[in-house]
Amino acid sequence: MSDLGYRFDLTAEEMPTQWYNILADLPYEIPRDISLKNNSEKQKMVMQVPMELIRQSMGKQRYVDIPDEVLSAYRQWRPSTLVRAVALEKALDTPARIYYKYEGNNISGSHKLTTAIAQVYYYKKAGVKRVTTGTGAGQWGSALSVACKMFGLECLVFMVGISYKQKPYRKILMKMNGAEIYSSPSEITEAGRKFLALNADAKGNIALAIAEAIEATTTDNSTRFCIGSGEPYSILHQTLIGLEAKLQMQKAGDYPDFVVGCLGAGSNFGGLTFPFLQDRLVGDSKVRCISVEPASCPKLTRGEYRYDFTDSSGVTPMEKMYTLGHDYVTPDIHAGGLRYHATSKLVSAIYHHGDIEAVAYQQREVFKSGVLFSQTEGIIPAPESAHAVHGAIELALAAKENNEAKVILVGISGHGHFDMSAYESYLAGELDDVNITDRQIRDSLDKIPDVSALLDQ
Amino acid sequence: MSDLGYRFDLTAEEMPTQWYNILADLPYEIPRDISLKNNSEKQKMVMQVPMELIRQSMGKQRYVDIPDEVLSAYRQWRPSTLVRAVALEKALDTPARIYYKYEGNNISGSHKLTTAIAQVYYYKKAGVKRVTTGTGAGQWGSALSVACKMFGLECLVFMVGISYKQKPYRKILMKMNGAEIYSSPSEITEAGRKFLALNADAKGNIALAIAEAIEATTTDNSTRFCIGSGEPYSILHQTLIGLEAKLQMQKAGDYPDFVVGCLGAGSNFGGLTFPFLQDRLVGDSKVRCISVEPASCPKLTRGEYRYDFTDSSGVTPMEKMYTLGHDYVTPDIHAGGLRYHATSKLVSAIYHHGDIEAVAYQQREVFKSGVLFSQTEGIIPAPESAHAVHGAIELALAAKENNEAKVILVGISGHGHFDMSAYESYLAGELDDVNITDRQIRDSLDKIPDVSALLDQ
Repeated sequence: MSDLGYRFDLTAEEMPTQWYNILADLPYEIPRDISLKNNSEKQKMVMQVPMELIRQSMGKQRYVDIPDEVLSAYRQWRPSTLVRAVALEKALDTPARIYYKYEGNNISGSHKLTTAIAQVYYYKKAGVKRVTTGTGAGQWGSALSVACKMFGLECLVFMVGISYKQKPYRKILMKMNGAEIYSSPSEITEAGRKFLALNADAKGNIALAIAEAIEATTTDNSTRFCIGSGEPYSILHQTLIGLEAKLQMQKAGDYPDFVVGCLGAGSNFGGLTFPFLQDRLVGDSKVRCISVEPASCPKLTRGEYRYDFTDSSGVTPMEKMYTLGHDYVTPDIHAGGLRYHATSKLVSAIYHHGDIEAVAYQQREVFKSGVLFSQTEGIIPAPESAHAVHGAIELALAAKENNEAKVILVGISGHGHFDMSAYESYLAGELDDVNITDRQIRDSLDKIPDVSALLDQ
Repeated sequence: MSDLGYRFDLTAEEMPTQWYNILADLPYEIPRDISLKNNSEKQKMVMQVPMELIRQSMGKQRYVDIPDEVLSAYRQWRPSTLVRAVALEKALDTPARIYYKYEGNNISGSHKLTTAIAQVYYYKKAGVKRVTTGTGAGQWGSALSVACKMFGLECLVFMVGISYKQKPYRKILMKMNGAEIYSSPSEITEAGRKFLALNADAKGNIALAIAEAIEATTTDNSTRFCIGSGEPYSILHQTLIGLEAKLQMQKAGDYPDFVVGCLGAGSNFGGLTFPFLQDRLVGDSKVRCISVEPASCPKLTRGEYRYDFTDSSGVTPMEKMYTLGHDYVTPDIHAGGLRYHATSKLVSAIYHHGDIEAVAYQQREVFKSGVLFSQTEGIIPAPESAHAVHGAIELALAAKENNEAKVILVGISGHGHFDMSAYESYLAGELDDVNITDRQIRDSLDKIPDVSALLDQ
């Protein structure tokens, strides 16, 4: 390979025009969801999803055409870059070849914009005027507000109070894109007012922010609830990442031994890895897809595969997932996007069948790798993405140990420009690692309602 | 043009390998600098510039080879993107075709990294172990720290106290790259301690930060003072921006009627426009190069062309420039990089001879255009860059008025991710426009020492 060829860019014409649906190639079924009757009213609100998105979550069509309007919006920043991390390789003195796929190069700053655009397109087509959501650190709210601005929909965001205060830059980004944004708990919903009556200086939490968004939802088309990750359709949309990366690896004349992504609810990890996993499911590839999760939120490595709610308030239908229990209180680590108690039923089933692997790391080693990546490759990874970077570095060091020229592809899901205070804490030596006990996980798992009786229906 | 072809990317192989030196093509001389004797000791410290950089400031060689190590470092993010701003055109409903060249896509966040890398390379080659500088809002300090990390030099930065406090993200970026950074006034220099003795809670200013850096400079190779913009060599390095843009405009099958850049000390503006200006100086191009400055710091539009110090403390040699007086106190606008009392002698001479044009805008209209650009093109321009965006939008609206399909190329010198609080102030209606009186400018100009006697030597 030429020393010049660090970047393997695709032209606009080379961008794939279909998403990849892994359901077509899985030799097993995804367990169906279960609805508890006492939640039916709120569930209706949550489940008012456009028919097209429901079809995308259930269908077995291998490739799904990306609508022209969505393709056109994607072209603002896609195809995204794939780079060989030559400087990082040198710093590690490894025989491994490391490539990274970078999703932070758009105004929202992360991969989430890829599904936000598709979702907003389908909601608009269904006649919806406004979408609403709850957001924690703000990546999803940012992406949704950008997509709404593109397609002319209104956007109502409830942002967790403490983040609204401590992470002001994403709040400003949402305002810049015309979103109506409230610190949650807010005064505009009953849920918010109730909470405020009890806690005057409330910091809020993601469950409450979502509850406020659900309350603001209507049964007509005026306001619908919209969710960012975990659902099979959001993973489907994100497969564009992996599809592009496959073409780019071809340009590089290489093929990965490992594909590494961080894992929250699953859309980043699934989007990057599923197109490669296809080669393994239906071809003779031996590619290993490795998910990286925080040691403080170890759903795959220490959770159980069982039915649980996808939200922490227990309103949604129950899905079969690797979970720590919807009541699990994730320690306050900086990778907000990975602080989810479970992961998508799709990723969970695939892990259960042994087709992907999982590792968990502590945040100090993760930030150390994030700093090294910044210094060598000139991109500051978001704290979430730094988990994947650390996973890739561990693999590259193992390759050095064994003197093997392994090929590693790592997904950088977003930039850390709005998370610099997290890096500051790390550099100042103020970050702690967190050791979760088995007992903590057990206690939380024990709070999940037993649904075994319902499974024989 | 295909609807797909929004981006006109160059491959790594297509990146120019030489800088362009406009001195070769100017039909007039740049007035020589003047040194005042009473400043000679400190001047020595300021002027310890590697011979190669001095040659680059005086020579008339039309093209200067970029060293291989510098080219290799540039490839981390260069060639930078050139995009046709189709969404912005639509929003303006203009027949004009608007292209933008984006320099924010590197870890330092602005064009400054392009000269920082070259300078650090030459300082290292000259045997220097550490460079030091003063930085205001932090763009230059950030770029220098990144370049030092790349080449293994130490970096000592004095950052204006108030920015150190209010713009923490750039400070963290510098620390991440291993720079030693002090809030100025600091305790480690005499200048800093003196200032602190008089003002316990000192906010500092750029003149003091530079004075501290100069004090930290040594006459041997252990620590040298390094400066970011304005010097002919820094503009030379930045011409890569314009050289790339020329190739990219060819790919687009278009040629600009206008090239628009914001103007501080001159390296962004000169870097973008000089390669196009060459076509006008030695060819038959009618391209118009337009500099955009803040109405609150109107050096070209309301300053005088005369000898002045390039720093506000009056330590440096005097250069013939458009200036508002080195004592001019720029109102506290958010475009920190444009708050310079003068502009490069090179840009000044070219303006004096009528080869470029200048406009000045108020910050509220500038931020309004910055928000529109963010919403349509998905890039948040730095407040400095938003000045250029506003200039381009004004031209596009004039083209609409006259129903002319003008071609406009605008330089986006950096991203605004670390300036979101400025956008927040704008969105909250808290920004004021500032009207500078003729008297203010006159008073400041009258403080410049009269050097007419020295000119007849």
